[in-house]
Amino acid sequence: MVQNLGQFTLKNVQGEARRGQLVTHHGAIETPVFMPVGTKATVKAMLPEELKALGAQIILGNTYHLHLRPGEDIIEELGGLHKFMNWHGPILTDSGGFQVFSLSQLRTLTEEGVTFRSHLDGSKYFISPEKSMEIQMKLGADIIMAFDECPPYPSTEEDIRKSMELTYRWLVRSKDAMTRPESLLFGIVQGGLFEKSRRESLEQITSVDLPGYALGGVSVGEPIPLMHEIVYKTAPYMPKNKPRYLMGVGTPIDLIMCVDAGIDMFDCVLPTRVARNGTLFTWQGKVSIKREQYKRDPKPLDEECDCYTCKHYSRAYLRHTFLSGEIISSRLNTIHNLYFYAELMKRARAAIEENRWVSFKNDCLTRFVRSDSDQDKKN
Amino acid sequence: MVQNLGQFTLKNVQGEARRGQLVTHHGAIETPVFMPVGTKATVKAMLPEELKALGAQIILGNTYHLHLRPGEDIIEELGGLHKFMNWHGPILTDSGGFQVFSLSQLRTLTEEGVTFRSHLDGSKYFISPEKSMEIQMKLGADIIMAFDECPPYPSTEEDIRKSMELTYRWLVRSKDAMTRPESLLFGIVQGGLFEKSRRESLEQITSVDLPGYALGGVSVGEPIPLMHEIVYKTAPYMPKNKPRYLMGVGTPIDLIMCVDAGIDMFDCVLPTRVARNGTLFTWQGKVSIKREQYKRDPKPLDEECDCYTCKHYSRAYLRHTFLSGEIISSRLNTIHNLYFYAELMKRARAAIEENRWVSFKNDCLTRFVRSDSDQDKKN
Repeated sequence: MVQNLGQFTLKNVQGEARRGQLVTHHGAIETPVFMPVGTKATVKAMLPEELKALGAQIILGNTYHLHLRPGEDIIEELGGLHKFMNWHGPILTDSGGFQVFSLSQLRTLTEEGVTFRSHLDGSKYFISPEKSMEIQMKLGADIIMAFDECPPYPSTEEDIRKSMELTYRWLVRSKDAMTRPESLLFGIVQGGLFEKSRRESLEQITSVDLPGYALGGVSVGEPIPLMHEIVYKTAPYMPKNKPRYLMGVGTPIDLIMCVDAGIDMFDCVLPTRVARNGTLFTWQGKVSIKREQYKRDPKPLDEECDCYTCKHYSRAYLRHTFLSGEIISSRLNTIHNLYFYAELMKRARAAIEENRWVSFKNDCLTRFVRSDSDQDKKN
Repeated sequence: MVQNLGQFTLKNVQGEARRGQLVTHHGAIETPVFMPVGTKATVKAMLPEELKALGAQIILGNTYHLHLRPGEDIIEELGGLHKFMNWHGPILTDSGGFQVFSLSQLRTLTEEGVTFRSHLDGSKYFISPEKSMEIQMKLGADIIMAFDECPPYPSTEEDIRKSMELTYRWLVRSKDAMTRPESLLFGIVQGGLFEKSRRESLEQITSVDLPGYALGGVSVGEPIPLMHEIVYKTAPYMPKNKPRYLMGVGTPIDLIMCVDAGIDMFDCVLPTRVARNGTLFTWQGKVSIKREQYKRDPKPLDEECDCYTCKHYSRAYLRHTFLSGEIISSRLNTIHNLYFYAELMKRARAAIEENRWVSFKNDCLTRFVRSDSDQDKKN
């Protein structure tokens, strides 16, 4: 067993922004950190060695998808998710809850758990807190999420309250079902966009002693400013000595705002998904690579970037391969976006460490917000 | 200018099988060689560094596709095809003839050239021998193919004869239009499946002094045994001191058979295309990775193979990612198939060099032919 497993050390704090380190079974993670999403045992378009080279420290796997195909028994039999997908760094798996509620069909929710039909072939499944823990332990993740109910936006305060009570009872059952000491269990704070219920959920969830806590139920369709607001109003009240993970967020602006609110960990499909659609994040803002203006542009995508894509290819080549529907387009774009996210978090860590977080934050927001509104004007 | 540009050296000959070396502007090519196809300025799913690492010596670009998009003027302006696509080894471009005749719409053929409509947007184009040379020189390929007419299979002997006469006149015009000394011009022997017209075309085409010659108009839909027969009956009569390139061929069996007939160079989309469809070539024959039997198979795809895919992933993972439609499936499968083709040619070169070609050939044919018929029984 790794020494100090689960230990979270704060190296520096500026305002609410935190520079920390979390020790997992497959290595230490420097925070704030962005975690690329590898839903079906692969981060789309990427090889593990490429992820490592561009600075990814930890990746996600999705319990719902892996349970449906190929199934956790096969992955366990083949030596666990790390070996199966050839990624030997830390892995976090979600609980399956969010996907059961957003992707599957014909859900029936009881105190016991959720019965649902697969979005792949309609076959019937049941997931309870115990089952979710069993799947995640078989996958062998380093960080495991408690099984929660994730209500949609908008929901009434009463529905949110009922749901968060259930999430609490499910957390207790999740913890009781944990038998794998190498895996760190995180609890998930719910409570929707109601400050009062958020704080109540926070109190309930953090009453269970765990190595980390997450904010769930954000980025479920609510307006972005409301998301920022609830994070600003909740994150600072999460335990200071534990890592804080904001699930499913977000854009570069979101990341900067939420680091500022005290968040340590992020995951999101955004940088990989939009890369495949030709949208790229740069230090000068968002770029839509298909635009006519890049047709004969010999410059790298981002002259401030040291990623493989920016070192070896022109905007004209990125445009050509995107318009031609070539796989290399998805690859080069994904490499760039994930490098950009990793670099953004790396610079954020350095800024907090060196007590210049506020000026770094303001510089980022000026660049990204201005570019977004430029983009909006052009579209 | 490279010393000895265009020089072809035979290191050893066994029967008709030849072990040679061709010097191009971007380096020497050891033959027999298989050339992966990079139609639109990318070998599908692959980065240039990966191609080099798996042993690819030279790749193809397709003049027809690159002329339509992004256009040779843009590529020239950006420093040529090598720089554009970040591949710094030798490149061969075809003449566009084959694609004009197989892909484009509403072709009108005259002595002057071919008028056609793009398969992309229906816009009108004209390619003549002079135009084809101009495009290829702007792309900056190391080996350039003469503009030929490629008649479909089946065609009458009279049509084939008319066509090959035109191809000869176009070759003379192609050569006259060549002004770029770094590019080596190859002529293309036509003549269909008629031994007599093949030999006549061969005589005509090789009467023009060129650094290499190709067999065209094979692999256009004719039965495989007829293709092998015409290659066996034609290749040995091609100039012994020049490289011989068989266009658009083929399977591992085809490669072994045609090296045996005296061919030095091959290209084909087969290994990359079928890789993306889940068909993999191994030393034990063809594998369809989607089959149920691989569901929980922890073994590498080919235990005899040292490629990245076989070193790091199980058959179960390859099956899972293929069924999940993941990009990594196309990548891992393409890496394997191209490595296999490169390795097959590497072993062929060693066998000819070490005077054990016949036993190597027989061993390959026994493995591949048996496995193909096993596969047929199972399907």
